[in-house]
Amino acid sequence: MRPSGRAPDEMRAITIETGFTRHAEGSVLIGFGDTKVLCTASVERGVPPWLRGKGEGWVTGEYSMLPRATHTRGAREAAKGKQSGRTQEIQRLIGRSLRAVVDLQKLGERQITLDCDVIQADGGTRTAAISGAWIALRLAVNGLMASGDIKHDPIAAQVAGISCGIFKGTPVLDLDYDEDSNAEADGNFVLLSGGKIAEVQATAEGATYDEEGLLRLLRLARIGADRIFAAQLDAVK
Amino acid sequence: MRPSGRAPDEMRAITIETGFTRHAEGSVLIGFGDTKVLCTASVERGVPPWLRGKGEGWVTGEYSMLPRATHTRGAREAAKGKQSGRTQEIQRLIGRSLRAVVDLQKLGERQITLDCDVIQADGGTRTAAISGAWIALRLAVNGLMASGDIKHDPIAAQVAGISCGIFKGTPVLDLDYDEDSNAEADGNFVLLSGGKIAEVQATAEGATYDEEGLLRLLRLARIGADRIFAAQLDAVK
Amino acid sequence: MRPSGRAPDEMRAITIETGFTRHAEGSVLIGFGDTKVLCTASVERGVPPWLRGKGEGWVTGEYSMLPRATHTRGAREAAKGKQSGRTQEIQRLIGRSLRAVVDLQKLGERQITLDCDVIQADGGTRTAAISGAWIALRLAVNGLMASGDIKHDPIAAQVAGISCGIFKGTPVLDLDYDEDSNAEADGNFVLLSGGKIAEVQATAEGATYDEEGLLRLLRLARIGADRIFAAQLDAVK
Amino acid sequence: MRPSGRAPDEMRAITIETGFTRHAEGSVLIGFGDTKVLCTASVERGVPPWLRGKGEGWVTGEYSMLPRATHTRGAREAAKGKQSGRTQEIQRLIGRSLRAVVDLQKLGERQITLDCDVIQADGGTRTAAISGAWIALRLAVNGLMASGDIKHDPIAAQVAGISCGIFKGTPVLDLDYDEDSNAEADGNFVLLSGGKIAEVQATAEGATYDEEGLLRLLRLARIGADRIFAAQLDAVK
Amino acid sequence: MRPSGRAPDEMRAITIETGFTRHAEGSVLIGFGDTKVLCTASVERGVPPWLRGKGEGWVTGEYSMLPRATHTRGAREAAKGKQSGRTQEIQRLIGRSLRAVVDLQKLGERQITLDCDVIQADGGTRTAAISGAWIALRLAVNGLMASGDIKHDPIAAQVAGISCGIFKGTPVLDLDYDEDSNAEADGNFVLLSGGKIAEVQATAEGATYDEEGLLRLLRLARIGADRIFAAQLDAVK
Amino acid sequence: MRPSGRAPDEMRAITIETGFTRHAEGSVLIGFGDTKVLCTASVERGVPPWLRGKGEGWVTGEYSMLPRATHTRGAREAAKGKQSGRTQEIQRLIGRSLRAVVDLQKLGERQITLDCDVIQADGGTRTAAISGAWIALRLAVNGLMASGDIKHDPIAAQVAGISCGIFKGTPVLDLDYDEDSNAEADGNFVLLSGGKIAEVQATAEGATYDEEGLLRLLRLARIGADRIFAAQLDAVK
Repeated sequence: MRPSGRAPDEMRAITIETGFTRHAEGSVLIGFGDTKVLCTASVERGVPPWLRGKGEGWVTGEYSMLPRATHTRGAREAAKGKQSGRTQEIQRLIGRSLRAVVDLQKLGERQITLDCDVIQADGGTRTAAISGAWIALRLAVNGLMASGDIKHDPIAAQVAGISCGIFKGTPVLDLDYDEDSNAEADGNFVLLSGGKIAEVQATAEGATYDEEGLLRLLRLARIGADRIFAAQLDAVK
Repeated sequence: MRPSGRAPDEMRAITIETGFTRHAEGSVLIGFGDTKVLCTASVERGVPPWLRGKGEGWVTGEYSMLPRATHTRGAREAAKGKQSGRTQEIQRLIGRSLRAVVDLQKLGERQITLDCDVIQADGGTRTAAISGAWIALRLAVNGLMASGDIKHDPIAAQVAGISCGIFKGTPVLDLDYDEDSNAEADGNFVLLSGGKIAEVQATAEGATYDEEGLLRLLRLARIGADRIFAAQLDAVK
Repeated sequence: MRPSGRAPDEMRAITIETGFTRHAEGSVLIGFGDTKVLCTASVERGVPPWLRGKGEGWVTGEYSMLPRATHTRGAREAAKGKQSGRTQEIQRLIGRSLRAVVDLQKLGERQITLDCDVIQADGGTRTAAISGAWIALRLAVNGLMASGDIKHDPIAAQVAGISCGIFKGTPVLDLDYDEDSNAEADGNFVLLSGGKIAEVQATAEGATYDEEGLLRLLRLARIGADRIFAAQLDAVK
Repeated sequence: MRPSGRAPDEMRAITIETGFTRHAEGSVLIGFGDTKVLCTASVERGVPPWLRGKGEGWVTGEYSMLPRATHTRGAREAAKGKQSGRTQEIQRLIGRSLRAVVDLQKLGERQITLDCDVIQADGGTRTAAISGAWIALRLAVNGLMASGDIKHDPIAAQVAGISCGIFKGTPVLDLDYDEDSNAEADGNFVLLSGGKIAEVQATAEGATYDEEGLLRLLRLARIGADRIFAAQLDAVK
Repeated sequence: MRPSGRAPDEMRAITIETGFTRHAEGSVLIGFGDTKVLCTASVERGVPPWLRGKGEGWVTGEYSMLPRATHTRGAREAAKGKQSGRTQEIQRLIGRSLRAVVDLQKLGERQITLDCDVIQADGGTRTAAISGAWIALRLAVNGLMASGDIKHDPIAAQVAGISCGIFKGTPVLDLDYDEDSNAEADGNFVLLSGGKIAEVQATAEGATYDEEGLLRLLRLARIGADRIFAAQLDAVK
Repeated sequence: MRPSGRAPDEMRAITIETGFTRHAEGSVLIGFGDTKVLCTASVERGVPPWLRGKGEGWVTGEYSMLPRATHTRGAREAAKGKQSGRTQEIQRLIGRSLRAVVDLQKLGERQITLDCDVIQADGGTRTAAISGAWIALRLAVNGLMASGDIKHDPIAAQVAGISCGIFKGTPVLDLDYDEDSNAEADGNFVLLSGGKIAEVQATAEGATYDEEGLLRLLRLARIGADRIFAAQLDAVK
């Protein structure tokens, strides 16, 4: 039934290549099937003005698509002179999701920026970005702990982003582009290892769903998250 | 337990003043307690370029806060030269929520813009905006039907926006500013008359929740939505 | 002769609702007929960089129209990414007009921002804004004096803004939209209680006037200003 | 009494060099003493979108200062990414002032843009710009009439811009920078040959004036305007 | 003598991975040592407005660096709201260099955009971008010829970009970051297969060179270009 | 053969009027034939943030064209809200060229900004700008030395900018607009008195050249530079 032939609760292949670039403190190219996102973690001394002097750190995210990551070329946001509402929404989601597991006191007065640049898009770029950003963050924090800059691990859990949706009436896991552009409803879930939920964003443009539908999407999301947690652990070992 | 003395499942007073301004095809000043939002519906011939020639209409939303709607004055976005990510996120949510109940074919080649301008803020501005925008839309469409411009009612249901959150460990309905800035988790729900869900955005910065918590928030949201549906019907009669 | 049936020297009804919003130190919804402007005064510690350390304060104005304040919807300046020349011209006029009566030394190192947001427009928005801004300023300064933050009243006089123009050959007071868009000449006057003039801006696009015409407009303006001064006093008592 | 030693009703030397640049249809370097403004008139086919198909033309103005026209260097507006409120206010004034004497029907469907670039500033740049722009416009229209593109002269009168102000209690004509930055009140007048007034902008920041003061400024302005009209005629002969 | 231990006329390893992304009509990840640039060619129907109706096509380039391509993180141009002068300069160079070998008549009314996104930077990003862009262009044009959209090959020669400079007094080929930031003089050469020169940009900030120095840099550039031509041919075979 | 009737190695008349404006520390109107550029040098205390505390100065350039400097009117960059890539490229070139001869240590902690504003354009505006900027810089530094602010002359040589190109197959010196828009190849050279080269930018859009062609352009450039050096010395004597 799915254009890709996958079962409803089947994720695409998760591919992870750590150390994809060499300057960043953490770097990974993560793939959910044909969706490929380069996630880097950059550690900088200092924090934004409103946090100064509190002894806390900050974690933030940025997101962009290369112009030809998509089927047809999109104009460069730098050329247009502003970031779209969609880009800003995703950036805010990435930052919030990762902060959900970081103890900013333990991080100390430093900022970690998670840059998520989509190299190739086939649906689910924001959830791949969140899942990859956790790996880049984990690698960067490992480095800070190895060098003695941080004493106590500030990361309390793993973070996985995963999309689910209702496609031709059936709840399915990890939508690709063909499914995403035709789904009746569509949800992005940010789940933590240990079972907690950091974020649910479930939308139904044109159609709608009910409580039972929401719960079925959430259960599918847990299946995907477990796959992602395992792949993350494997990558950062 | 709540700073306002309200019961956990108690909404603030809903106030609705239709016809607050005279030029718009639909106009309402909606209040959820001290949160006051002016919502207007403007009907224009024509649709955005990507919809032309399809015989369909479009519904979109815009959102802004007056600089001193808040406790301390915020800089004007027009002066800063760009809209914040938060503003754009809310605008997109308003448009999506209303489109969930509008049959764009029945609307015909016209655009309805729902401008939601926050006159005074005390938490829940986006949900008041959605709830008020439905009234403005309903009034504007009533006008189009009365004049014979539209034959068949394109609005399939009512739309209510309502926030819930976990405050000091207890799920509560319709957070005001004091609660919102101290909530452990916080959800915005867009519900339709008839029981369907159009949108769930549940976030837990710093803390997290679980499936049971999400369901409890959703159930509170239904209580609030029923209050809003009744007030809307009363206003547009 | 006037579309509204008013006599040439007749102002529209002046309506004033103080305390229209609750966060601002001064707040008023002022109406000149169907023109409605929300004026708030926000007091902030500190002054712009070029005034620091001089022991003086600052008074400034900002102005905007809600998108559907007008007969047809106008694009939001925040969405366009810049304020129009007209908006900036009016903002500068509001700030200059109010500073004409404020002793900045007595104000001390604080800034008062007068936000004038047009809720509904029917001609004369800038003059209603100036007249309402004086009320908001007066209320805010009353608060600073009541709390002992300011010892000596820094406000030396009242400020009224009023428009006059030549419509079908006759000088008329307080132009509404129908008159404004068809006037041969058009003047905005800022007058002070006590008889002094703070600002004259008289323009004749397409047509022109002479010295006698200017004086006749100025005399009409005085009639309107007296009405406004009385209404202001009544409101701030 | 005046820093320059001039009598109160004495203008600075007016210098006019027509044909200062060769590409523009009209070009003049005008000087009011040390204030030097290059004014060019550019004729283009077509009109702005909102005028198309009406058989009318359009006249508009633009204004800028070279960064080091002033005593201390100012940042380039192109580098800052926007034009200041002051620049926009002056541009609007230039366009309005020249349109006051042009019959747009006789001009036909063409636009004339009057670019006024301040090469050196010593007070009164906007009034020199208006006075010079009239010359550039006259030269450009002469060309259109010589070539037969326009049959009937669309220019009904001359336009002069002149500033006056109250300096140390005395009304004075044509303020230079030293006077302008210390004047108690300050007015810009746009007068037409034949005695009509196109625009009065009289401002008193900090101080104020009365009706008699306004009339004295206006009478001084007439003296200056007569000097300018004579110099203009001499230049375009 | 060189930090990398290379001989003065020794290039870094050239790595080329075609088909790095799947949506673009041509795609390649090119590496000059640790400098990695993703170049994609996007074919679109239609041409810019100023070329319409002439039967000609257009080739243009865009360039960007990922924020953490460099040793320390750089702010995103999309977030800053404008492209730097350096970015625009490089974009113009890429477009000009490729147009030097394309017969725009043979290309027909279509535009090919060469997006060059630097994934990792270690000096020479613009020259790697040009060399990679030629491969992406070649692949895209091969596709157009295979599908019969283009009859005659519009590409007349290969294009190689290569940097040379004077480092500690010695002319060296293909500067890496350590050399580039300490070079006395620095040139970027765009050379064509067959021996012609498309572009020379030789700069000496602080120091200077003479005619003999320029020729020695040019000769080194030829050595590098021959290496690049061979690698390009190998990649597109 | 040349449209102007000049010999291939013949420059246009060089005209130099120093002290063209009075506020700048150095000011010159330079003409290469009908190309006229106003160059001013502004001296300011302090340096950009990244140079603070090093005891060094900075020299930078800015460039703009008046809207009607050209045959047809161009839109104002300040109105468009950004500087074009061409403008930024030229600004960077001007700054780099002048820094090639300035000892920034001897200059001390001050910045000199060279503003080059094109009053009239007929090809070669950037090279006239560089040649004129050197004069403005020399005059400003003379002032600093005369006042004792600088002890040792920081300027090591003269700087001339000159364009050459291949027009109808023949290398020619100092291209005017007619030649520039039809040249097969086109080079801008920045040469120093004493024979050194600061910058070569040689471009061949559509056509190409070879090593011999480059050398012939360079030799022509030397002929032009000698003319410019003589005129500069004459002007600053």
